[in-house]
Amino acid sequence: MENRIATLASLLPEEADAALIISEVNRRYFTNFVSSLGYLLVTRNGAFLLVDSRYDEAARLLALDCTVLLFRNLSETLQDVITQQKLTCVLLEGSAFTLNEAEKIEGIFQKAGASVIRSALLDQLIGKMRIIKTSAEIEKMRSAQRLTEQAFTETIQLIKEGVTERELALELEFRMRRAGADGVSFDLIVLTGAHTSMPHGVPGYTPVQYGDFILFDIGATADGYHSDMTRTVAYGKPDNVQKRVYRTVQTAQQLALDALHEGVSCHEADAAARSFIDAAGFDGKFGHSTGHGVGLEIHEAPSVSPRNDFVLRSGMVVTVEPGIYLPGKCGVRIEDMVVVTADGYINLAALSKDLIEL
Amino acid sequence: MENRIATLASLLPEEADAALIISEVNRRYFTNFVSSLGYLLVTRNGAFLLVDSRYDEAARLLALDCTVLLFRNLSETLQDVITQQKLTCVLLEGSAFTLNEAEKIEGIFQKAGASVIRSALLDQLIGKMRIIKTSAEIEKMRSAQRLTEQAFTETIQLIKEGVTERELALELEFRMRRAGADGVSFDLIVLTGAHTSMPHGVPGYTPVQYGDFILFDIGATADGYHSDMTRTVAYGKPDNVQKRVYRTVQTAQQLALDALHEGVSCHEADAAARSFIDAAGFDGKFGHSTGHGVGLEIHEAPSVSPRNDFVLRSGMVVTVEPGIYLPGKCGVRIEDMVVVTADGYINLAALSKDLIEL
Repeated sequence: MENRIATLASLLPEEADAALIISEVNRRYFTNFVSSLGYLLVTRNGAFLLVDSRYDEAARLLALDCTVLLFRNLSETLQDVITQQKLTCVLLEGSAFTLNEAEKIEGIFQKAGASVIRSALLDQLIGKMRIIKTSAEIEKMRSAQRLTEQAFTETIQLIKEGVTERELALELEFRMRRAGADGVSFDLIVLTGAHTSMPHGVPGYTPVQYGDFILFDIGATADGYHSDMTRTVAYGKPDNVQKRVYRTVQTAQQLALDALHEGVSCHEADAAARSFIDAAGFDGKFGHSTGHGVGLEIHEAPSVSPRNDFVLRSGMVVTVEPGIYLPGKCGVRIEDMVVVTADGYINLAALSKDLIEL
Repeated sequence: MENRIATLASLLPEEADAALIISEVNRRYFTNFVSSLGYLLVTRNGAFLLVDSRYDEAARLLALDCTVLLFRNLSETLQDVITQQKLTCVLLEGSAFTLNEAEKIEGIFQKAGASVIRSALLDQLIGKMRIIKTSAEIEKMRSAQRLTEQAFTETIQLIKEGVTERELALELEFRMRRAGADGVSFDLIVLTGAHTSMPHGVPGYTPVQYGDFILFDIGATADGYHSDMTRTVAYGKPDNVQKRVYRTVQTAQQLALDALHEGVSCHEADAAARSFIDAAGFDGKFGHSTGHGVGLEIHEAPSVSPRNDFVLRSGMVVTVEPGIYLPGKCGVRIEDMVVVTADGYINLAALSKDLIEL
């Protein structure tokens, strides 16, 4: 793995000689070490990971590119480092420190004669690093995607009259985890019948009925990395409206994929799907963004939305997930997770998007 | 449900005319409404729950004791309320606001001519309310505990040579959720053999072997409320050391339970278990606290620890979970979740603590 800590150290602004990272996801990103608690102090001359006795042994074995320090009293250990390293000013991770935690840490720095900067600057520096995925990261996301697809393929065999959304969601999660997933990327969404028209629906006790669309928005995590996939299947013969909605979404999704490459803006990629859906007679029935970044978190930058003029670059991983929602009738969403490349994209999803009729 | 919002409004300090609550758990506590995002503004004259379009309809139907406001632009909607209610100063929830979120909200209040207080005061006021559980809350915890016990009783039937910790943990969770649990109280702990000596162990691919202790530290959630239970069972005949460790922990746990009543301090309750374990020849082998509060979160105040002179009161719910850990050999922990009463306690756990030999 490249030395991410050294990269961050090189990006520190003139006014700060260190950065303090406490979020689980960013500690993991920089050290490859997972723990529920820890303080990663990155200085221009090296980094220190402060952990308690639960994690001391494992951190010494596994944490990359940093010196592990066991703390029994956080204040004392942190003050020692500040003094030894002659630190004067530290950037706090503004998206992770709560007001109470910032207060505590500022007190410790002040005792050691140093100050803190409370701002979003550190988040911006880290965000710029995390938005470009390395091939190792992409392989982890591909593994997560395989676990998702395998569980999906198994679970749709269980669909029959009367099985509930909640049962299908639970079977999916059980299968993902039994096959080795860390967990799920988010609370899995399984919706049936008229519920499919709700983009933010939650699986309930509604049973599947003949003629329903069933929408699965699902994802497993592997080694911390997320996957995200949506497929909509038909239980029984779809009627003409269902077929037209499905084909329209399928074409729109392919158009958005075809629009992807380094240099295209998020709103252009979004427009490729949206303009087709609007023109096909479903104007206003696609109420969310076309996609979002994915990685160590399920929602990362960039947002592939109508109002985002951010330009995509090679190595970014985004979802492409247009949908059409007809309240009271049905909804369809189709979603892949892809890597943007110089001249197009690599689809991390391998499953077909042709309508499955069960 | 009692009007918790009115209670909080009555506790506001002189210098603030409102409180802004953003944590999911506290929004749920005060309004009984669950959403991933929302802003609950409690004033002396009423409360306002600001939600986005995903939650507007459901919040109007379900949220208690507040006026629901749909926001499309948070800044505009919040400024309108501040102006209409003539607010001058708001307490922020210091344990929930990140630095970046506090910055954003402070900007909005300043635009409306008001200020914010960044401190832990609001957390303290809410903590004092939440630490005493109502009978409705206790019933939810009892339901969660029943789901835990049912899944445990089913799952220990699956124990056989070769089944792994991870498989048992997954079976437990699957059963809890299939029976109606919201989810699990924490990542379930199932440890076998020498792993049982690690109080913070994580289930892995280690298979159960004849002669092992198997430790289950598990809990389901129901309606947002957590349960927490530990049982240690024997697969095959325990040897004399295992038997002596088990009996010592079982007696220590009962002694701590017997010590509970309104007016006893946390350190006294802790000492009841600890002094027995120490005197039985296991001095230093019980390395964690005897218990902790439980409720909408798995770890709440008070901590039933050797250094806490906090005095227990009727209506507090705590765990009682002493253990003995012999590295490389075995560990035993036994845990119930109980309600403190005027003259004793009500045990929310119904399962026997006699050693089960499978």
